This record gives sequence, C-alpha cells and structure tokens, in this order.
Amino acid sequence: MSELFETPSLLLDVDRLDANILRMRDKLAPFEVVLRPHVKTNKSLEVTERFFPAGRGPITVSTLREADFFFAAGFTDILYGVSIAPNKFAHAARLIEQGAALKLVLDNLESARLLAEFARTHEQTFEVLLEVDCDGHRSGIPPHSPLLVEIARLLRASDVTVSGVMTHAGNSYDSRSIAEIEACARQERNAVVDAARLLEEAGFELSVVSIGSTPTALFTQDLSGITEVRAGVFAFFDLVMAGLGVCQVQDIAVSVLTTVIGHQPEKGWTIVDAGWMALSRDRGTAKQSVDQGYGIVCNLNGQPIGDLIVTAANQEHGIISSRSGTFEPAGELPVGMQLRILPNHACATSAQHAGYHVLTGGRHLGDWSRIAGW
Amino acid sequence: MSELFETPSLLLDVDRLDANILRMRDKLAPFEVVLRPHVKTNKSLEVTERFFPAGRGPITVSTLREADFFFAAGFTDILYGVSIAPNKFAHAARLIEQGAALKLVLDNLESARLLAEFARTHEQTFEVLLEVDCDGHRSGIPPHSPLLVEIARLLRASDVTVSGVMTHAGNSYDSRSIAEIEACARQERNAVVDAARLLEEAGFELSVVSIGSTPTALFTQDLSGITEVRAGVFAFFDLVMAGLGVCQVQDIAVSVLTTVIGHQPEKGWTIVDAGWMALSRDRGTAKQSVDQGYGIVCNLNGQPIGDLIVTAANQEHGIISSRSGTFEPAGELPVGMQLRILPNHACATSAQHAGYHVLTGGRHLGDWSRIAGW
Repeated sequence: MSELFETPSLLLDVDRLDANILRMRDKLAPFEVVLRPHVKTNKSLEVTERFFPAGRGPITVSTLREADFFFAAGFTDILYGVSIAPNKFAHAARLIEQGAALKLVLDNLESARLLAEFARTHEQTFEVLLEVDCDGHRSGIPPHSPLLVEIARLLRASDVTVSGVMTHAGNSYDSRSIAEIEACARQERNAVVDAARLLEEAGFELSVVSIGSTPTALFTQDLSGITEVRAGVFAFFDLVMAGLGVCQVQDIAVSVLTTVIGHQPEKGWTIVDAGWMALSRDRGTAKQSVDQGYGIVCNLNGQPIGDLIVTAANQEHGIISSRSGTFEPAGELPVGMQLRILPNHACATSAQHAGYHVLTGGRHLGDWSRIAGW
Repeated sequence: MSELFETPSLLLDVDRLDANILRMRDKLAPFEVVLRPHVKTNKSLEVTERFFPAGRGPITVSTLREADFFFAAGFTDILYGVSIAPNKFAHAARLIEQGAALKLVLDNLESARLLAEFARTHEQTFEVLLEVDCDGHRSGIPPHSPLLVEIARLLRASDVTVSGVMTHAGNSYDSRSIAEIEACARQERNAVVDAARLLEEAGFELSVVSIGSTPTALFTQDLSGITEVRAGVFAFFDLVMAGLGVCQVQDIAVSVLTTVIGHQPEKGWTIVDAGWMALSRDRGTAKQSVDQGYGIVCNLNGQPIGDLIVTAANQEHGIISSRSGTFEPAGELPVGMQLRILPNHACATSAQHAGYHVLTGGRHLGDWSRIAGW
C-alpha cells in the first residue's frame, strides 16, 4: 500500500495517534485540568481535530502563523507560548481584533513596558500569561521573584490583563528515570503554583495556572492548583520519548518512508533516499543511554529490522548500518525495498515535510497537509 | 530596514551572492569545464538565475521536485544527483516526455536492471551517469571496478544511454587544511577520469565526466579530462565552509534575522526567537576546530558581535552566550533588538524557510521564494 508513495515521505499511523491521545486524556481525567495541546508538533488541522472530537478546544501554538491557521479553522482559544517579540505586537493585535482569544507570554520588564506602550498607543487590549522558570532550563521568571508582581502592575496600568502564569519543565527531557520525571513534575507544579500565589496575594485574580511537557504530564501525581496542561509530542511520540521510558517504540505514530537505492557491501552499508532533509538533523538520542543515530529502521509494517539504524545522513542520502555489525543488510534489503524510519524527534522530522500519508489498519486513509513558517 | 520584517526570517545578501558566484566562475574560467550549479542549496528560481545572466544553463538537482520546478521555469539540462529509486522511474519518465534532458544517476547492477526493465516495458529512453566512489564517503562504484562496464553493457542492451560518469568528494568537507582539500580534488578528478577511461576502453563514448564539491572546485589545480563541475553551497557559503578555510565569515550570504525576547542575566543568556526551526538542527561546526554552536551572532549590518554564538536551541527559542564569558549581553542586546545569525550549513538552514528577504547595499530588494519537498 505505502509502496504507492514516492519516497521519501512522512507516514502517520492514525490508530497510534488516537491511542496516544486517549492515553493522555485518561491520565489527566482524574485531575481538574484542561488539556491545551501544543500543535507545534503536528501543525495540521486534521491531527489537531483528533484531540477534540466534539468541537474546537483550547490550543497552544509556537508561531503566529499557527495561530492564524488554526484561528481561520475555527479555533479561538489560543496560547502563543513564546515570549512575544515587539515586531509581532501588530500581528497579535490583528488576531485579537478578528476575535481570537489570544494569550501572549512574556517574562521581563522590558517586554512588558513595550507591550504596555503598544497597547496604550493603539488602544488595544491584550491578555498575558507570565512565564515562570521552574528549572533553569530556558526562559521565565523565578517563582518567588518580586518581578512577577512588578510586571503585572505595570501591565495592569495599561489595560493589559495578566490572566495567569505558565511554565515548561524543559529539563524533564534530560531525565534518567521515571522517578526523575516525577520529580520534575513536582518542581514544575510547585513553581507555577507558588508564582500564582504570589500574584494572588498582591491582588491579581488569575484564571490560568498552566504547566506543560509530555514527560511530566504523563507521570504527574499532583495537579492541585493547576488549571491546564500543555503538551504536544505525546500525540506522535518519538525515539527521545522512548529513550526516556515515556512510551514504547511501537507507540511512535510517525515515520519516514524511504527506499533502498544502493549498497556498499564491504562496509555493511545500505543507502536510502532519506537523508537529513527528510529525517531532520535532530540527534536527540545522542545524549541518551542508547544513541539511535538518525533513527531506527523498520519494515513496512513498522517492525524494527534487526539492530539497523540510520548511522549517517547527507542531504538526500541516508546510510543504514547494523549497530552490532551482526546483520548483513545487503541481501536482506534489496534496491527498491521500502523501509520506515522512526524519528528521534517527531517535531523536527515532521517539520521537514509538507504533509502526512495517513494510515489506519495498514490502509491508506488519505493525505493530511501541514503548515510551516512564521 | 530589516526591522520591518517579522522574525525569524531568512535574509539573503545578493551582493555577497553575486561575488561568490563570480569567484567560482573566475576559478573555473581557465579550465575547459561547464559549471553545473547544484540548486539544492538555494531551491529558488531567482537565485539560480544569478548563475546564468544569459539564459538557462545546466543545473544539478537533489530531488525530482526541484527538477519539476526548474524545468517548468525553462531549465532543460538537469542532472538529478541521487541514485534513482525505482518508485521515481515514472516521475523521471514524465519529465523526459515533456522535453527535459534529464540525466539520472545510479551505482549498482540491481538499479540498472530495474531501470532497464522499466525502459523496455514502457518503451522509454533514459540517460544515465554512473556514480563513482572517489573517497569511500557514501555511494558509488570504485573507479577501477569491472562493474562499471558490466552496468553500462546491461543498460545499453535496453536502450538506456550511459553518457558519462560523476563523483562527489564528500570527504573534502572533513579536510583540516587547504593542502588536504587540494589532495581531495586530485583524488576526485583522478577517480572519475580513471572510470571514464575504463568505460571508453570498453567502447563507450562518454560526453560527461563530472565532479563536484565546493571545496574541491575552489581549490582544484587540474581539471584535465573533466567536462563539468557541480557545486552548490559556494553561492551562499556558511560557517562550515569558513571553518574549512574555503571562505571568510564575511562572505556568507545568508543569515537568520531574529529578535531578542528576554534574558537570564545571571547566566549571561540572551533569549531570541530563532530556535532550531529557524536555524536548523545542523551542528556541522561541532567537529571542526572551532565549534560555532548554532551560529555566530551579528548585528543588523552583518558584523559579528563580540564572541557571541547561539549555544542552545529549542524549537522556537535560541540561547545566545558569550563563548569566553567576557561579553555581558544583557545590557548590549535589549529586548526588541534584531540580530542576524550566520548558519553552520546554508543548505540546512535555508531549507527551514519558505523564502528570502533579499538585501542589496543594505536595502530591501524584494522577496524570493523557495520550494521544498519531493
């Protein structure tokens, strides 16, 4: 069936997708939280609709291009999860004027001052979440910093609503055990709840206390004080998540379809037509205990073949080798044979493709497109 | 001027582009060779037109999507430089039927047998170059292998024309000195000339003896017996090429425009809105003597700022730090400031964008689009 497709191309197993979404829903069901999926992983209307069988729920986006696209498709409650750059104020304002309930994020006084000035000058209201740093990973304000209140007051003076706080446990991706992920989850929850308390004690009413990362969301044990969970990669999963122990390899819903185009038998190499353009340059498993190269090699049914991985990638060439040297690919993988490569990082690999060939029960259900850019 | 653009976005300095093209033309002028630029770096009609002020010259493509696009724009002499997969035979045949002088590449008996069978079944002619392995880098037939003649005979029996041989000195990218690049260039030239001689002695008339890599093309001293040179990245250059000594940092024609969105002052971090989605995950300088992280940080005029590089990247966040720790970015790089990031690998970074904001003499000349996919 998938032999009908020219290669390389991106396959999406919709049965696995649905099962992964169900797993997250089941995990969060006992808690009083909203799931606000991050659509940066899928960038697809049809995939995002699988999260919401009964309508258009709240989403998180990583670009205003995503916000434009999903708003045009009827999604109105949109959190843009990257600290807003001043050159994007006008773009955000356009979305709000058109009716989007767009929430912006920022984590510093300068950004707040510039946004407040824009709001005054253009008589524009904005809704803002303050970003909290729970683990020193990237952005955000320390959870006990007086800066939180200072920024919130500055914004309030300019009719910008601070409706909540958000954080992201980026360090959970570097965990070495489920116990470490659970510790990250506690740290993430505590940081954002502490920050919310600080603001509430200063007189701010918050409706959003938001956390989000796939590992912490799937292993959290306490979401008291949290109103919503953002996560994205759980829908597809990937080898980084499997390496963390967050999923099994057979849960991974996306793969790159490729074709054998040659061999270098004396080196044990099989050459395929998926290079880094199709697989991405992401080497996220390189720092894990098992380095998967540029991905695990599977047959058309999605079953790994021996211990084959993609060990090197040029722009449009991939080199497949046996990890142990005990598998002789040349005889087993003839020219023309199609293979599926499981990706290190679903967000990065999917972003190299304009859409998905969607499979269900091994049949071709149709093609779903993706958006790209900013 | 570039402050008009929303970030992140891709900038192309057309003055540097033209100078880089001129340098390659001047280098090759003393030799009797044709330049067949590889358009996989630029994937843009307007950029490719800069190579050919007087028409539509020969090009190399990395995908049949590029072949479709450039053929529709009037380019007819097209070499598809990746060993052809059987599922692409029909696509290639369509291009040939429409009038493209499309040259295919292969390097093994199985591919030849399958192509010959397709040619017979569909009464379709093809023109093929045999790929020669000059350095054990990736694909290709050893230059003295009897396989060359065996494959050529098999193809001739099915009305498939073997019009030449081609090779790519992929190992030149790992050179440590100009002397090593010159050695790669000799090896590349000798391998493909030897392979051509073997075929000619067996009675084949070859019109194409093709080499290609930016480092070897710029430092070759002997192209006797060579008919054409393929190279692509020379038009843009990048930090990998600068690290090799093939160009200067100030020759790099593409950069990613980004905006400061926050700081973590105690860590010396500046956060920008270009992550790996805008920069690509390519870390090609990691194995060179100077690791440039995810790229060198420049001001809007393209001048490097202190010793700042992008030291980490998430999907839409980049973290800028001083390499030595002696530069204090927080005061110097206020929120809202726009910066330009020079890329490790021009092909990979450009592929993350739908087009270029084109600059000349610091002015905005216009926007040129790129294609993507297969």
